[in-house]
Amino acid sequence: MAGNYYGEHFRITTWGESHGKALGVVIDGCPAGLDLKEEDIQAYLDRRKPGASAISTPRKEEDLVEILSGVFEGKTTGTPISLMVRNTSQRSHDYGNLADCYRPGHADYTYDAKYGIRDYRGGGRSSGRETIGRVAAGAVACKILKRLGIEVQAYTRSIGPVSIDGSRFDKDAILSTPTAMPDREADRQALAYLSQARSMQDSVGGAMECVVTGLPAGIGDPVFEKLDANLAKALMSIGAVKAVEIGDGIGASALAGSKDNDPFYMKDGKVMKATNHSGGVLGGISDGSPLVARAYVKPTPSIFRPQKTVDRFGNEVELTIQGRHDPVIVPRAVVVMEAMVAITVLDAMMGNLSSRMDYLIDFYGQHKE
Amino acid sequence: MAGNYYGEHFRITTWGESHGKALGVVIDGCPAGLDLKEEDIQAYLDRRKPGASAISTPRKEEDLVEILSGVFEGKTTGTPISLMVRNTSQRSHDYGNLADCYRPGHADYTYDAKYGIRDYRGGGRSSGRETIGRVAAGAVACKILKRLGIEVQAYTRSIGPVSIDGSRFDKDAILSTPTAMPDREADRQALAYLSQARSMQDSVGGAMECVVTGLPAGIGDPVFEKLDANLAKALMSIGAVKAVEIGDGIGASALAGSKDNDPFYMKDGKVMKATNHSGGVLGGISDGSPLVARAYVKPTPSIFRPQKTVDRFGNEVELTIQGRHDPVIVPRAVVVMEAMVAITVLDAMMGNLSSRMDYLIDFYGQHKE
Amino acid sequence: MAGNYYGEHFRITTWGESHGKALGVVIDGCPAGLDLKEEDIQAYLDRRKPGASAISTPRKEEDLVEILSGVFEGKTTGTPISLMVRNTSQRSHDYGNLADCYRPGHADYTYDAKYGIRDYRGGGRSSGRETIGRVAAGAVACKILKRLGIEVQAYTRSIGPVSIDGSRFDKDAILSTPTAMPDREADRQALAYLSQARSMQDSVGGAMECVVTGLPAGIGDPVFEKLDANLAKALMSIGAVKAVEIGDGIGASALAGSKDNDPFYMKDGKVMKATNHSGGVLGGISDGSPLVARAYVKPTPSIFRPQKTVDRFGNEVELTIQGRHDPVIVPRAVVVMEAMVAITVLDAMMGNLSSRMDYLIDFYGQHKE
Amino acid sequence: MAGNYYGEHFRITTWGESHGKALGVVIDGCPAGLDLKEEDIQAYLDRRKPGASAISTPRKEEDLVEILSGVFEGKTTGTPISLMVRNTSQRSHDYGNLADCYRPGHADYTYDAKYGIRDYRGGGRSSGRETIGRVAAGAVACKILKRLGIEVQAYTRSIGPVSIDGSRFDKDAILSTPTAMPDREADRQALAYLSQARSMQDSVGGAMECVVTGLPAGIGDPVFEKLDANLAKALMSIGAVKAVEIGDGIGASALAGSKDNDPFYMKDGKVMKATNHSGGVLGGISDGSPLVARAYVKPTPSIFRPQKTVDRFGNEVELTIQGRHDPVIVPRAVVVMEAMVAITVLDAMMGNLSSRMDYLIDFYGQHKE
Repeated sequence: MAGNYYGEHFRITTWGESHGKALGVVIDGCPAGLDLKEEDIQAYLDRRKPGASAISTPRKEEDLVEILSGVFEGKTTGTPISLMVRNTSQRSHDYGNLADCYRPGHADYTYDAKYGIRDYRGGGRSSGRETIGRVAAGAVACKILKRLGIEVQAYTRSIGPVSIDGSRFDKDAILSTPTAMPDREADRQALAYLSQARSMQDSVGGAMECVVTGLPAGIGDPVFEKLDANLAKALMSIGAVKAVEIGDGIGASALAGSKDNDPFYMKDGKVMKATNHSGGVLGGISDGSPLVARAYVKPTPSIFRPQKTVDRFGNEVELTIQGRHDPVIVPRAVVVMEAMVAITVLDAMMGNLSSRMDYLIDFYGQHKE
Repeated sequence: MAGNYYGEHFRITTWGESHGKALGVVIDGCPAGLDLKEEDIQAYLDRRKPGASAISTPRKEEDLVEILSGVFEGKTTGTPISLMVRNTSQRSHDYGNLADCYRPGHADYTYDAKYGIRDYRGGGRSSGRETIGRVAAGAVACKILKRLGIEVQAYTRSIGPVSIDGSRFDKDAILSTPTAMPDREADRQALAYLSQARSMQDSVGGAMECVVTGLPAGIGDPVFEKLDANLAKALMSIGAVKAVEIGDGIGASALAGSKDNDPFYMKDGKVMKATNHSGGVLGGISDGSPLVARAYVKPTPSIFRPQKTVDRFGNEVELTIQGRHDPVIVPRAVVVMEAMVAITVLDAMMGNLSSRMDYLIDFYGQHKE
Repeated sequence: MAGNYYGEHFRITTWGESHGKALGVVIDGCPAGLDLKEEDIQAYLDRRKPGASAISTPRKEEDLVEILSGVFEGKTTGTPISLMVRNTSQRSHDYGNLADCYRPGHADYTYDAKYGIRDYRGGGRSSGRETIGRVAAGAVACKILKRLGIEVQAYTRSIGPVSIDGSRFDKDAILSTPTAMPDREADRQALAYLSQARSMQDSVGGAMECVVTGLPAGIGDPVFEKLDANLAKALMSIGAVKAVEIGDGIGASALAGSKDNDPFYMKDGKVMKATNHSGGVLGGISDGSPLVARAYVKPTPSIFRPQKTVDRFGNEVELTIQGRHDPVIVPRAVVVMEAMVAITVLDAMMGNLSSRMDYLIDFYGQHKE
Repeated sequence: MAGNYYGEHFRITTWGESHGKALGVVIDGCPAGLDLKEEDIQAYLDRRKPGASAISTPRKEEDLVEILSGVFEGKTTGTPISLMVRNTSQRSHDYGNLADCYRPGHADYTYDAKYGIRDYRGGGRSSGRETIGRVAAGAVACKILKRLGIEVQAYTRSIGPVSIDGSRFDKDAILSTPTAMPDREADRQALAYLSQARSMQDSVGGAMECVVTGLPAGIGDPVFEKLDANLAKALMSIGAVKAVEIGDGIGASALAGSKDNDPFYMKDGKVMKATNHSGGVLGGISDGSPLVARAYVKPTPSIFRPQKTVDRFGNEVELTIQGRHDPVIVPRAVVVMEAMVAITVLDAMMGNLSSRMDYLIDFYGQHKE
């Protein structure tokens, strides 16, 4: 099946392997008339770039984006926007037994089981570099949403046992700390924890959170295309994510109904909720409160300890992974989460315009040429 | 947007409101040649029927299914299978202020925000009765999967603070206890807890789990159509579900990589995993181990205590919900989870047949007439 | 594959066999707030009903439609609209060798080749009764389009060698002549021709045309989702249609560019075309002129002469078809064409609302709650 | 709406403008294990390249294709295949009044009506260069089909009044004549006709035909996804195509049923048809005979005579188009037709593998690991 596209109205199709010639994305359905420059996109790609910090791989990846189509004289034209990043640092080298071995926790075995063949260089299509296309497209979605008054902000919520403390929430820290935590104290603790894990040739997991503010009520669809259902898919489709929560999530399942229900009240003629256990969505449709989602990420499967596994010929072998691997995936995945949430929300908003007869009548009353 | 269909190859389209004339589903893409009778489907519908037990609503819903098309002389023909359940117990009665009030925790407000109109009788389309179409279609998917050697089994994992104990796992209890727990001791404790909640005019949440056994490795797609991503969507699309986990889920995010990675080994010439933290999926593709998913359900939002809310005219009001409502949703949602998992897995399996050139060559070599 | 749905935003899923229990359609994505009654739909179904005239089968088909969901207090709610027509006149009778024989010009053999099984009663799913769902959904689409100032009108253009004469165009005749021709003189000639064909136990083909007026410029998409490409699919999907033309169609291919190009001019500040060779579409997008499409229909394959064919056991046999069959399909297919064109145009109009940033900004500026 | 993709299983997404940086296509869903080299694709792109002959534009377009992903060590891996052609001959030059004028017969006005903005250089997205992505993807589809024993062959059938004569059919001439006609005598006549049209600063239309041999019976779906319905869409989506016929097409509508019905007979234990008026499809499903489709192309709208038109400011102007334009589109569109037919047929074949229970049972019986 063709599984490399996402979104109905703002549809992205990503392509590319870790060590192939290039990676990229085609955005089909971007509204015409948006100001768009390569810098708008580069800023997001730079957030997923391995930094100078202790916790990310020192591999130098420039990841410069090129706009190949869909933009004319600085504006989108409504035609597909093709974005490409050339792979620069890949070079032919010896992959040793990685060509044949199935790394535990990786997709090597399952790709072989499905396709009978795989590009083993750097994980091929299952590499984290696959997210370059998502982030590039997410940058465009975020720009559109901002123009509509909607802000999408993701950050690291926990790394191993270290969680952020809401009372110390510092938005500026998200882009300036190595962990992407909005809490400088937690950042320090997490770095210490990561240093320890690294010294033990091990890796750790964590959680990230995304909040969408400014979203009007009424966005999303009932039944299968619920806004939260699509968010769950979008987030679980990010490699290494193993759980998704909306609003109170698992916590809601332990509450009594009298505590979980958010009372409505009126403020300035507008329907408001006194609490937000629901995380901004009721019955699959946005309720006007901030949308809140969390994604839980497993530890990096590439660890430097020797591991037992098998190869594709059916031999049991001991594998020692070499190279450079982040001990935690979360900080670089934060911008991927932001991208996927933005695309999901924008897609739902674009689909909403034809939900009522009066919308259609108003629109074609105005735009009848 | 049209959001009432699910699945690409085995596609279901559900329709119907709680108190409308009928509810149903059209299954498009069911393979031809399957033996199918109404009893096959009725058995699943009966599992979501309110029982005689203390915890479910005494409302008598027969929910008899009728096969309207797609089956000829007891076999599916490859054409759409239309299944319908007439609503029998709905009657015109006074809905009091429910027609205008927004019940907290319900979709009343968001439907109005989106559509400007809603069928307020019994929750309309946002009622739990919406799942009748899902369950009817799920029965067909389960029957096909069984024929392929695959078993899908869901059950209640926890209700409020009461969780099942794996050491007491009793599969027979799933269909015979009021809670759908595979643990008779936990069932007793949960019933006591529910009785207490009911006496306080309150409601509770819980968790359900689904295990798929017999699934071969290689099912699912990388990137956006990952098997676990589609499971997350399928489960989060069930009303009241607020979190989804695959395998160790949130637990995985707290493990070290050396613990979370499942070592591969060989057994009888077959690749096996020594543990199953992954929950049966790696890189979005099944790995041959049992598929394990969990869904967390919020407490029933309909509680009998007076609640503060607003009406559609912008007045703040106090609402007292009457009628019959289960104090917990989980036991009746278990079969819905089973249905959604079965449809998702079958759909991925159907899409897998054209993933390799050698499959196509073999198939058309054999079936060239 | 699941091939029984059509449309992206206004999506219809049809189901049912000629001699099954019922036939129907689910409309998913109908805007909320449309006044809708069963009579609105019945009026269209009655147009495909066999009439009292000499040319259509005397079989009594009531084809009464029932709205099962999606309408509340006379208005659509945005949830799926399920429409059903019970089969009343089917009865168990002897199908003779039709159960095993492959009728020439019919889909008997190809259904068996694909599915290995088929409902042979009255053609099963390949019967003309399959169009009941299309027509019922088309009635809803037409009602919406009328509300937007758009008229869709189909009629018979030719039957055998008899074509309508534009100078005698009489719109009222479409609904009142047995041939659905907008030309009473041509109707008379065509009836005479049909009578002759019938006396020779033979059947004839013909052509139908559909004109859409009031459609603004800018509707449709470039490349694969061109408005004319979707019309071509919609029309070719009607059983027995073998050719589709847009505007001058084949005639355009014989013209010089200097004759085929439609000059633009201004009228009352509006861009107009001096001619309409294009048939209202340029580059896949509506150009503000009337949309003009034609569909060519093969002769009814059920004829009463003995025919040579084979059965499913591989025997060569002589087949004599009995029963009641119209000697021409066109007059009853006209309303099917109208339905398919209406659904296609409405779907494109619904998709157009998010094509520009300024549309999104205006909409969410207005509808931000 | 996102309208730049085509196909469900073998899905292509094309992008790029005539004078942008590059054009390309992403193929999502190509089966793994196909040998694929750039030369396989280049051979098809060279067929749409303007040749040295008198009838095509002398503009030098190298159109060299680059495989950016999805192929590893010479074989497809099942991941998306990204193909790109850099635009080399575009240069910044003066477009004169083309930036503001609406060329008659072109999509300039309709793009502006839809998007409010357009890339006017060389027609932007509505240029014939848009088909580069289609042809590149079609080359891959053709290679797969050949491996399955299926041949797709398109050719020019007529140019202006000059039609090929079946008795002179010469397959080798298709690739070696400037007109792509399989008839060297007709080629000569057509060239003379074109020379005359060119001398009158005018252009002409024509027709092309495609025949698919080796296709087994049973491919395609009933109702909306009929094989012929998808062919009609595929062909009508090619710029300048105004009509599509299947089999006898319009001719069928003038036949009596007794002539149009193709009798079945047996040959070597196989069901055969004595004639092929149906063009290889019955009820939307292939019948085992050659698939025959025709597409009719309007004359090139770019002609060198002065034409009346308007500009985007609402002024009536006289336009004289300059530059280099083929006087007929057909010969270069033949390979585009071949590509679209191949993709459509392959897509239907891939979808066919899950149509029966016995197919699923056989497959998973064999491939259960």
